[in-house]
Amino acid sequence: MDNKLITIEWKNDKLVLIDQTKLPNEIKYEEFETVESVWDAIQVMKVRGAPAIGVAAGYGLYLGIKDAPEESFEAFWKVLKEASDYLATSRPTAVNLFWALERMEKVAEDNSNMDIADLKNLLFEEAVAIHKEDEDTNKKIGENLLTLLEDKMGILTHCNAGLLATTKYGTATAPMYLAKEKGWDLKIYADETRPRLQGSTLTALELQMAGIDVTVITDSMAATVMDQGKINAVIVGTDRVAANGDVANKIGTLGVSILAKNYNIPFYVAAPTSTIDLNTKTGETIPIEERDKEEVINRFGEYTALKDSNVYNPAFDVTPHENVTAIITEKGIVKAPYDENIKKLFHNDN
Amino acid sequence: MDNKLITIEWKNDKLVLIDQTKLPNEIKYEEFETVESVWDAIQVMKVRGAPAIGVAAGYGLYLGIKDAPEESFEAFWKVLKEASDYLATSRPTAVNLFWALERMEKVAEDNSNMDIADLKNLLFEEAVAIHKEDEDTNKKIGENLLTLLEDKMGILTHCNAGLLATTKYGTATAPMYLAKEKGWDLKIYADETRPRLQGSTLTALELQMAGIDVTVITDSMAATVMDQGKINAVIVGTDRVAANGDVANKIGTLGVSILAKNYNIPFYVAAPTSTIDLNTKTGETIPIEERDKEEVINRFGEYTALKDSNVYNPAFDVTPHENVTAIITEKGIVKAPYDENIKKLFHNDN
Repeated sequence: MDNKLITIEWKNDKLVLIDQTKLPNEIKYEEFETVESVWDAIQVMKVRGAPAIGVAAGYGLYLGIKDAPEESFEAFWKVLKEASDYLATSRPTAVNLFWALERMEKVAEDNSNMDIADLKNLLFEEAVAIHKEDEDTNKKIGENLLTLLEDKMGILTHCNAGLLATTKYGTATAPMYLAKEKGWDLKIYADETRPRLQGSTLTALELQMAGIDVTVITDSMAATVMDQGKINAVIVGTDRVAANGDVANKIGTLGVSILAKNYNIPFYVAAPTSTIDLNTKTGETIPIEERDKEEVINRFGEYTALKDSNVYNPAFDVTPHENVTAIITEKGIVKAPYDENIKKLFHNDN
Repeated sequence: MDNKLITIEWKNDKLVLIDQTKLPNEIKYEEFETVESVWDAIQVMKVRGAPAIGVAAGYGLYLGIKDAPEESFEAFWKVLKEASDYLATSRPTAVNLFWALERMEKVAEDNSNMDIADLKNLLFEEAVAIHKEDEDTNKKIGENLLTLLEDKMGILTHCNAGLLATTKYGTATAPMYLAKEKGWDLKIYADETRPRLQGSTLTALELQMAGIDVTVITDSMAATVMDQGKINAVIVGTDRVAANGDVANKIGTLGVSILAKNYNIPFYVAAPTSTIDLNTKTGETIPIEERDKEEVINRFGEYTALKDSNVYNPAFDVTPHENVTAIITEKGIVKAPYDENIKKLFHNDN
């Protein structure tokens, strides 16, 4: 099967998204021509994953201004600002959403003297640039990760840090796609990732459709495949990396890191530098979102425990840097001591 | 809420079972008056859990012979043997099933000179004895385990080694029920236990109905609650304990044992001596059943991965004895060195 999955695409003046709410049972692409429909797509999670949301927001804002008045910057800016503020309400916790919108706004502000028709083109180019940069970042992360891997290896991943969360390649999955391109046979194990099952519904789906050898396991089977010698490396994505190398990621990641340590299996974190937050000193200060208990006990329209059960449902956990073998960014590979080496990564800029 | 759950009961000359296929959404008791209906109950898993199956088989065999001819032992034995062989086909992998049937057969053989009407009563008493012994065993395991615990502790359990798998108290859950009786406030965390969810559908259900404080978590959250200091002990059941103390149990147990070790949390195994198999030298020789992939990717009538996904679905795993703090039996508590101390447990028999 060819890899036909495309998370996000600009085609014939329209934004095209795969409807992720239908996965894995239906693969359906939908076209978007208005800012309202993009708002809706982000809100109901037809598009999800921080990088993909940022890119969708960029194109969404362009859709919101492409027919705006061209007489004066003030009139144009009013439409742009309204569209931007509106899009920002679609998923209020998504940092990349604000980041992309601010980046678009800045282009407008910096070019307020420009002919508005030209400015519209410039804003479109900025949306494309946001898109393209994400692809480039992921590809570089994949190339860097690939230097740590070998042909025939077994790799465990958790949750979805795949192309469906980004625009292409994904982060944790990037070396898997690049290995496929160079003819390697990696054997991937995808934790299903309860409670929301992003591992089976998204990661296993996208890898299988790309012709990559992937096997679904429940989260509770990770120890067993490690014990059987099937796993040579763990690769996960991250929501936020603290300055000391602590890694916040989907619930279950911490457990996988402890298992990997127990079996002396390297534990790699694929992290665009945009996810490294030097203002977060350690993982202990990262707030952990608790989500609705229905996710755990009623994932499938049928209760799997008493309806009034007590449920604890943290969405994320924090893996201490001691359990992390390396953090792989688009700028290079970072190892312990993380405090020091993460700083260096940013000092080497420009 | 009072504890109204009764796994198995003999009432008004009928066997009464809670229909476990309906849990947790419906609590329904069903009466059984024929050997055929008991065969069916075991086969479709209305009753499950090794001890409970054994007890049901004992009563089932009595139902099969209570109207048998009383003229001669030979005629009676023919009916008994047919019923026993028939019941043995209901769940061919359940060791307790054969054990209970053989025990019933032996009573008949040892008393072939007895008046058949009296022999029928004796067989009924044997079925009751099998039932009663299970309760007593569990209660003793619970009392022994309780000496290792304290009021206010947080306890993690995996799968269902509860009263729903036995006749009363359960094994891993026995100290929880006994603690409740003495007024302790334990805080139990129940791993939901993918793929079949026995933790949420059975363990959390039975503890909650007994008024015990229980919280459902996904298997992937076990590390987090340990990391947060919420867990003072892990207690699990077992399907088989090898002579060296290796423990076969529901998939996911191995991972929990590694997490417990990482956090220096004691890992206790509740094991009736009937589950200790001295002929199994180490856990490595225990065959691991692989089950249908639909359990993982289609648990609820809806696919959670592509239908043709590769899936690995081992039903059990083996926890090495190094990860086991103590094995708690009805005869006492066994600690390392297991090789030696497990043997002693049996030598003290007489």
